Amino acid sequence: MSASGTSSGHPIATLDTSIVPRLPASSPTLFEAKKNKNLSFETIAKALGREEVAVAALFYGQARASPEDVKNLAKILELDESLLESQLSGYPDRGRQMEMPPKEPLVYRLYEIIQNYGYAYKAVLNEKFGDGIMSAISFSTKVEKETDEKGEWAVITLRGKW
Amino acid sequence: MSASGTSSGHPIATLDTSIVPRLPASSPTLFEAKKNKNLSFETIAKALGREEVAVAALFYGQARASPEDVKNLAKILELDESLLESQLSGYPDRGRQMEMPPKEPLVYRLYEIIQNYGYAYKAVLNEKFGDGIMSAISFSTKVEKETDEKGEWAVITLRGKW
Amino acid sequence: MSASGTSSGHPIATLDTSIVPRLPASSPTLFEAKKNKNLSFETIAKALGREEVAVAALFYGQARASPEDVKNLAKILELDESLLESQLSGYPDRGRQMEMPPKEPLVYRLYEIIQNYGYAYKAVLNEKFGDGIMSAISFSTKVEKETDEKGEWAVITLRGKW
Amino acid sequence: MSASGTSSGHPIATLDTSIVPRLPASSPTLFEAKKNKNLSFETIAKALGREEVAVAALFYGQARASPEDVKNLAKILELDESLLESQLSGYPDRGRQMEMPPKEPLVYRLYEIIQNYGYAYKAVLNEKFGDGIMSAISFSTKVEKETDEKGEWAVITLRGKW
Amino acid sequence: MSASGTSSGHPIATLDTSIVPRLPASSPTLFEAKKNKNLSFETIAKALGREEVAVAALFYGQARASPEDVKNLAKILELDESLLESQLSGYPDRGRQMEMPPKEPLVYRLYEIIQNYGYAYKAVLNEKFGDGIMSAISFSTKVEKETDEKGEWAVITLRGKW
Amino acid sequence: MSASGTSSGHPIATLDTSIVPRLPASSPTLFEAKKNKNLSFETIAKALGREEVAVAALFYGQARASPEDVKNLAKILELDESLLESQLSGYPDRGRQMEMPPKEPLVYRLYEIIQNYGYAYKAVLNEKFGDGIMSAISFSTKVEKETDEKGEWAVITLRGKW
Amino acid sequence: MSASGTSSGHPIATLDTSIVPRLPASSPTLFEAKKNKNLSFETIAKALGREEVAVAALFYGQARASPEDVKNLAKILELDESLLESQLSGYPDRGRQMEMPPKEPLVYRLYEIIQNYGYAYKAVLNEKFGDGIMSAISFSTKVEKETDEKGEWAVITLRGKW
Amino acid sequence: MSASGTSSGHPIATLDTSIVPRLPASSPTLFEAKKNKNLSFETIAKALGREEVAVAALFYGQARASPEDVKNLAKILELDESLLESQLSGYPDRGRQMEMPPKEPLVYRLYEIIQNYGYAYKAVLNEKFGDGIMSAISFSTKVEKETDEKGEWAVITLRGKW
Amino acid sequence: MSASGTSSGHPIATLDTSIVPRLPASSPTLFEAKKNKNLSFETIAKALGREEVAVAALFYGQARASPEDVKNLAKILELDESLLESQLSGYPDRGRQMEMPPKEPLVYRLYEIIQNYGYAYKAVLNEKFGDGIMSAISFSTKVEKETDEKGEWAVITLRGKW
Amino acid sequence: MSASGTSSGHPIATLDTSIVPRLPASSPTLFEAKKNKNLSFETIAKALGREEVAVAALFYGQARASPEDVKNLAKILELDESLLESQLSGYPDRGRQMEMPPKEPLVYRLYEIIQNYGYAYKAVLNEKFGDGIMSAISFSTKVEKETDEKGEWAVITLRGKW
Repeated sequence: MSASGTSSGHPIATLDTSIVPRLPASSPTLFEAKKNKNLSFETIAKALGREEVAVAALFYGQARASPEDVKNLAKILELDESLLESQLSGYPDRGRQMEMPPKEPLVYRLYEIIQNYGYAYKAVLNEKFGDGIMSAISFSTKVEKETDEKGEWAVITLRGKW
Repeated sequence: MSASGTSSGHPIATLDTSIVPRLPASSPTLFEAKKNKNLSFETIAKALGREEVAVAALFYGQARASPEDVKNLAKILELDESLLESQLSGYPDRGRQMEMPPKEPLVYRLYEIIQNYGYAYKAVLNEKFGDGIMSAISFSTKVEKETDEKGEWAVITLRGKW
Repeated sequence: MSASGTSSGHPIATLDTSIVPRLPASSPTLFEAKKNKNLSFETIAKALGREEVAVAALFYGQARASPEDVKNLAKILELDESLLESQLSGYPDRGRQMEMPPKEPLVYRLYEIIQNYGYAYKAVLNEKFGDGIMSAISFSTKVEKETDEKGEWAVITLRGKW
Repeated sequence: MSASGTSSGHPIATLDTSIVPRLPASSPTLFEAKKNKNLSFETIAKALGREEVAVAALFYGQARASPEDVKNLAKILELDESLLESQLSGYPDRGRQMEMPPKEPLVYRLYEIIQNYGYAYKAVLNEKFGDGIMSAISFSTKVEKETDEKGEWAVITLRGKW
Repeated sequence: MSASGTSSGHPIATLDTSIVPRLPASSPTLFEAKKNKNLSFETIAKALGREEVAVAALFYGQARASPEDVKNLAKILELDESLLESQLSGYPDRGRQMEMPPKEPLVYRLYEIIQNYGYAYKAVLNEKFGDGIMSAISFSTKVEKETDEKGEWAVITLRGKW
Repeated sequence: MSASGTSSGHPIATLDTSIVPRLPASSPTLFEAKKNKNLSFETIAKALGREEVAVAALFYGQARASPEDVKNLAKILELDESLLESQLSGYPDRGRQMEMPPKEPLVYRLYEIIQNYGYAYKAVLNEKFGDGIMSAISFSTKVEKETDEKGEWAVITLRGKW
Repeated sequence: MSASGTSSGHPIATLDTSIVPRLPASSPTLFEAKKNKNLSFETIAKALGREEVAVAALFYGQARASPEDVKNLAKILELDESLLESQLSGYPDRGRQMEMPPKEPLVYRLYEIIQNYGYAYKAVLNEKFGDGIMSAISFSTKVEKETDEKGEWAVITLRGKW
Repeated sequence: MSASGTSSGHPIATLDTSIVPRLPASSPTLFEAKKNKNLSFETIAKALGREEVAVAALFYGQARASPEDVKNLAKILELDESLLESQLSGYPDRGRQMEMPPKEPLVYRLYEIIQNYGYAYKAVLNEKFGDGIMSAISFSTKVEKETDEKGEWAVITLRGKW
Repeated sequence: MSASGTSSGHPIATLDTSIVPRLPASSPTLFEAKKNKNLSFETIAKALGREEVAVAALFYGQARASPEDVKNLAKILELDESLLESQLSGYPDRGRQMEMPPKEPLVYRLYEIIQNYGYAYKAVLNEKFGDGIMSAISFSTKVEKETDEKGEWAVITLRGKW
Repeated sequence: MSASGTSSGHPIATLDTSIVPRLPASSPTLFEAKKNKNLSFETIAKALGREEVAVAALFYGQARASPEDVKNLAKILELDESLLESQLSGYPDRGRQMEMPPKEPLVYRLYEIIQNYGYAYKAVLNEKFGDGIMSAISFSTKVEKETDEKGEWAVITLRGKW
């Protein structure tokens, strides 16, 4: 195993094999290589020039890889490019990797925010933008870490076209 | 009706009466006063010194009002303070105002983000913070509006203690 | 009752009172007036300069009325404008008037089309437009009637921004 | 891989292997050949003289292939005709390829249209055609692309016998 | 109460008030009059010249009354014709009077037949009629009673256009 | 493949392999032999002296085969009798071959009839037979085809002991 | 309140008003009178000459009252006979008083027995009676109390026609 | 196959292979041996000195085998004792062999009894035993057959500690 | 309002009126009196000589009040004893005050513990006690508060008969 | 098999293979070694210096193993450390090993406690701690056995950060 890993010192994220039947063929290919080379999403994201969350979504089959992404992924993960190209050529069949409501506590917390604040977001968004919708497609998102005297804070930003 | 309203020029948000049976007694009281006085959450939030989303959540019975909030609300909404105090005295019974999955398209988009990106967020958060969880309670959130040549963008920020 | 009605000779559509608890306050107001004046959605749509389906959606609380719509509705339905303005001032809380899967056979047929052709639409849309989504918001729809030797055909057109 | 592909320049649609257990034996046969020969549904539809959506539905096991379709498919996909004949000989067991509500965002948008406009369609159809139903079986559908200054528009037409 | 009743000697069917919230306004009107006059569906069906099951369906808001039906119903039930006309003027919003799976044992037995024999019916229908569907709309149904040495038999016939 | 087939000229019904995991071991055995010998349920039913629907139900594991049925099936399908005897020896574990509500449009139509007419059947049956139930077990059913100037009609008869 | 009550010394069973909306009109009438007169089901059952469980089922609208039952009930409960006759004249709409799975712990235990022993009962019943079914309609049931050194035992007997 | 079988003359119960994935490893082992030796649960129960239903439950993984049971089972089924000991050593993970509501008609009838009589049992049990619960664990159950002029009756007895 | 309240300085718990339709008649009576007299469960529990959680459960209709509890409650809450006796006389119809999974975040955390640790508890309990069950009826529970340098800790103890 | 086992004399807990598809790869590895070496969770917990429930949760993939845990587990279970390290390197994907509501009676009892006492816990916790939440993450739990004249009692303690 290489000396890489995450910059935070925490171990890298790997794939729980029990969800593989819900994922496209590319997911185990990508996660296995990630594990073998001990690469964080941060490192891979830099190599691809994309946001970490987008890259993780791509690994879970939730985002489409551009031909350039395929090339870069093959390189950093030391995978056969034509295999990767073949496995990543389809259009993502999104949303099926997870049952809702989510059972995973960390993901459930995000779900709970929508459950509790859903109408509050709608009311404030309507007052700011009028009737309409925030796109979940023409959309970007990122995760950041802030530290203060109270400890560590996770900051998630969602930015969507109205 | 007063000359107030929202700074965006869009009408203020009001309460759909068909969800009243799922809400605490305080919700129709608050929303009716808000409508009568034509006040936006932005205006009310300034008067309370709190975030707009938190105030909207309070109106939907999802957040607890401090004694000071009660006082300020009574004042800006011209409501009887003791009535408000009585209706807002309980601990919020959160999460029941909405069926999940949300049917409202705007709220569904937020839900869909969790459904599609749930595991991606978890993977990136784990690599940054280790095993653990982002609190949905010791938590703040805000909505901002950005405008560029492509149009308007809604930016939602979630900030939770790890 | 007036001498109006539908141009097809079929009776006008009215509101089943048993779904009223799921609708905003404006729905019974609008439908009652429509029934009293025996007006079809075709007639009302012409008076508003909008598509019939959009007007029916507005009656069911699924679409937002512009100030001009309110004025026109009050006029053609002979309703008090300020009452209508008050009832229609909110942002629609969409999607709650119906349980899914729909039990109504006519609506179920539309649902069944999505169930059976969903992936086929996706495949063809992806090949024509690439990865992305057809907006259900920046969207218009209409219903037309065609007649040929085999009988009557309903033609529904959905037109959404990619 | 051949020089064919789609006329739009977008990659062709392929099959996500994780839904194979819900599909008849013919689906992986057909999709694999389509991928190997890099053919769009547009090209295959022309060779069969059928609508693109109908052909995609046939690939997903949602439509029945006529003996002529089998012959044409075998030819354009360079597949053994008797294998194809055997795999396509049954009557389609429709509707099982997808969980409802759909999790795929693109398909969800179509579902959401039914959820929000269901009663509006019913009301307008009833006023135009009287009590009755639009057939989802004696039915055709197509997808078209329109382009104007605002961008690309997807136009879906449903035409069903009343 | 009149001397009528059923020809079988069994009491007439009445309405369980606990399902009224799921029914249109016409249902309690019709059932109350039926109970007051102690009329069976057989008697009412004869007066209307329709099948018993169709009349019962009309009482439950599942079938549309023609203007002639309204006239005949008003007469035999001694109801105000204009009230009946108003309550029966809408298009039926079918299917909502019952939760599925049915909890009522008698109705459950019919549901169980579909559950157990569904694919068997499909296979036999396909072999007799080819691919297609039996209409549940252009459709008639009746209930008959046969008696033999083993006891009484209920015979239900469904006849639908292919 | 033999020259047999259906008397209607339509192809025979075969088994969609994707439902095999829900069926007993006998189902693929029986359906494969049926396909290889190109036999309709009509032909097999004659050889067994039973109703077509009952035979189709037996193929789907929903009905019990008598020792005589086993003998006759082995003969007409040219299957090893002891294999068949072993696979058909258990008591049917009925009802699991299908999810409810049915997604198959043809089967859904039958389900919809129960959903819409359930209470109507109950009311008429109660008036004819008193309180009680129609057996779904001591029960027979058949499918017939009628043709008139309007086209083909499917007639399904259910006959159950009260 | 009278000096009656139960022979066991335990208080009588009364009706939780929160389930009234799921019950026929007769249920609150009967339970209120039972409470006012402080009568146990044992006492009422004796007066009617029926099993206690059957009488309790009648109170919950799950069993049909014969004309004689109505007479006896009116007498022992001191209720107006014609009111009772009117409220009890319909055919029971069974099964709707309870959500399944039951949340009530005592009822859940019975449900759990079916969940855990369902297949075991089926296997033993099939070996004793062959293929078939135990009627839940031509059926009687009783509850008895046994006491031994280990304490009290509830003994429930179900007796159904095969 | 031996000359044993059931004393009733009906065939023995065997295992539907399609539910194997929900059962522990011991179930197919036990059922296969039972089938090969053609033994009824009655015969096996006698050899073990336990109730038939308890033995059937043990075969379905719903009851725990004592070391003595293992010895007796190995002997009567001619199975390797150490294999059986290993497969039966765990604590039963009860309740997962069946979906609820049960689709099997015979098991559904038992479920329906709970659904219809649940509150009636509770009321009678409460009046006899006071507030409390009947154990579904410290519990025994048996199935008996009674025959009278009306035919065969299945009698199921549940006996649980209060 | 009296000078009582909680010993912790936090406000007392009151009843969210939107769940009243799921509760017995006693719940609003009790909670209203508690609010009017500003009493904590701690204070009431002391007056009754019972655990706080048991008293709160009694208020929510989940536990049975003894005649002595009724007397004490009437006294401390200054309620009419005969009214209270009448409202509390029934046997609790437990479990219906809450939908599962719980939407309330605080209650969800408890639910999540069961979801995540369920099998772990079972494994450890089985190793300590053998096969069997922990009673949720012959059962007591309490909540305690511990404070250390890391802050406040809630300690919940469940004690059930094996 | 070694002479170890549990100190209670009850057999050790093993893994029901039918839930393996829901578990991470580490679970069958760990449970198989535990069974082969006949070790109780008590013994393993001592070797790891952790609570029994936490260790059982780790075996079911619900808790994260520290590098030290991995080392200790490899030693006591005589497993290859690098295999274990690889299988345990991911972040737990919690909550998916069990369907909710739990069907297992022992686990259901815990679930039922939450269902029945949920609001009672919330009310008491709110009065003791104010508005907020008990962490299910910064959380520890243990199981103890108490014995008195009434028999054995299971005592479960949950301790969570407020």
